[in-house]
Amino acid sequence: MEIIIWIDLAGTFVFAMSGVMAGVEKKFDLFGVIILGLATAVGGGTLRDLLIGSTPVAWMQEPTYIYLILSAVPFCYLFGKWLSRVTKGLFLFDSIGIALFTILGLKKTLEVGLSPMVAIMMGIVSAVFGGVIRDVLSSEVPLIFRKEIYAFACLLGALAYLIAVSYVGDDFAIVLSVFVVLLVRIMAIKKHWHLPFSIRN
Amino acid sequence: MEIIIWIDLAGTFVFAMSGVMAGVEKKFDLFGVIILGLATAVGGGTLRDLLIGSTPVAWMQEPTYIYLILSAVPFCYLFGKWLSRVTKGLFLFDSIGIALFTILGLKKTLEVGLSPMVAIMMGIVSAVFGGVIRDVLSSEVPLIFRKEIYAFACLLGALAYLIAVSYVGDDFAIVLSVFVVLLVRIMAIKKHWHLPFSIRN
Amino acid sequence: MEIIIWIDLAGTFVFAMSGVMAGVEKKFDLFGVIILGLATAVGGGTLRDLLIGSTPVAWMQEPTYIYLILSAVPFCYLFGKWLSRVTKGLFLFDSIGIALFTILGLKKTLEVGLSPMVAIMMGIVSAVFGGVIRDVLSSEVPLIFRKEIYAFACLLGALAYLIAVSYVGDDFAIVLSVFVVLLVRIMAIKKHWHLPFSIRN
Repeated sequence: MEIIIWIDLAGTFVFAMSGVMAGVEKKFDLFGVIILGLATAVGGGTLRDLLIGSTPVAWMQEPTYIYLILSAVPFCYLFGKWLSRVTKGLFLFDSIGIALFTILGLKKTLEVGLSPMVAIMMGIVSAVFGGVIRDVLSSEVPLIFRKEIYAFACLLGALAYLIAVSYVGDDFAIVLSVFVVLLVRIMAIKKHWHLPFSIRN
Repeated sequence: MEIIIWIDLAGTFVFAMSGVMAGVEKKFDLFGVIILGLATAVGGGTLRDLLIGSTPVAWMQEPTYIYLILSAVPFCYLFGKWLSRVTKGLFLFDSIGIALFTILGLKKTLEVGLSPMVAIMMGIVSAVFGGVIRDVLSSEVPLIFRKEIYAFACLLGALAYLIAVSYVGDDFAIVLSVFVVLLVRIMAIKKHWHLPFSIRN
Repeated sequence: MEIIIWIDLAGTFVFAMSGVMAGVEKKFDLFGVIILGLATAVGGGTLRDLLIGSTPVAWMQEPTYIYLILSAVPFCYLFGKWLSRVTKGLFLFDSIGIALFTILGLKKTLEVGLSPMVAIMMGIVSAVFGGVIRDVLSSEVPLIFRKEIYAFACLLGALAYLIAVSYVGDDFAIVLSVFVVLLVRIMAIKKHWHLPFSIRN
């Protein structure tokens, strides 16, 4: 299914933009902005590859990713003003991106012979860890710990894929998984869902 | 010595709890709390395995650890109030935990053929790095840099083990090492020990 | 060219000192100071080795580095006052250090068969990531994101080396590269160069 490659590239680009924009907001210089874009875009896949022992990590062997990420910098510079108005478009891309990153991470982990539970965890790591690095490097408490049940959407997407894949095949399971992630995130925003957790005392 | 496995599991559980409680204090959502519990419990062993080149990292190949860590979340939710009253019990568990994590890390590093000095360092990393990740992810200056000569206790425990093991055998050396870690930490608290360091100017 | 080893050791020592001094400023205890010194000195090379899959990481196989880094602690304690007056000397060492770390990282990455672009990135990682870890662990926004086109100097140094090496040989290309890094950093300070980046809105 060649469309996966295209959406993977689109997801990478969206992640790179989110890193670049974070760096701009924090007034990092050009190089800091590039590093933050790179770290956000490849951070999740890199940690996954390190943990499962698949090195050199994936993006190093495919220069397309690096060029794509670097191109996010002039893109944000030229269209930054316009970008802040199309948040909804970014939200769509970002949701499709994390759904696909989750599935790609999940599959790669299963391929090296690890258990489905670990594969789900590595899928989530692939999808969300780039954002964690972005937030740590810009001295923010990682967003993922505070908002939008971001990682939870990935978990449900991963479960949807794993359950569906044996019944309906890879392609449709991927579509279903993307749909689940989108749905959870949209519902979370519309209904102000969050995952409460407090200790009674 | 099968008891090591049990105390390793107990140590893992205590580390997971400390991550969960830190996430609760920072008002992370449920997923953030789970991630912080996981990162705290497996962070040290993960960094050790990455550095010595033993991948996939250990906890991925043994689902028991993951279930145990996940179970720390409902446990803290149900017994959080009670837990804050039994700090002394936690202190005991935590000290035994870091002593055993130190020895396990030390042995694993020696087994891949690295020097005793590096093995000691990897032992300490195994014991303390989970706490460093916990603090970095919750935007705190890592506790280890400020308090209780925590890592120093691990260093003395590691030395005690390495010196004793050739004379008294593995089992007794482990007991001695746990005893040394406990003693150093108790003394540090009773006598307000700390490791001073300041530049004269 | 044996002088590389010496300057590599000198660079390692300067990085260790910068970590130690940062720990002292933040009032870390002795152990925290040692860890910060170690992390700063070996952090860049460690991340590079992890990413390119060369484990156990380099410094673990050569105890000289560890002893050298540890010796930075008493050195800073004894000469801390004097050190703060010789900032220019440190600047020279530090610049030579990052230039050489860049080239060493670049060469090692090329040796495992990765592309020149990735090799340049890994060269920069080797040179600057220790400082990023130092700043993250001491709860600072990484300096590299804010000042002195530090990483940019490494990039130009790496390009200078890569272009020159086929014409003038390894030794002279290294000297040229160090010269480029020094020149860029001195000019950046004298002329208040920085890499501006802002989104128009």
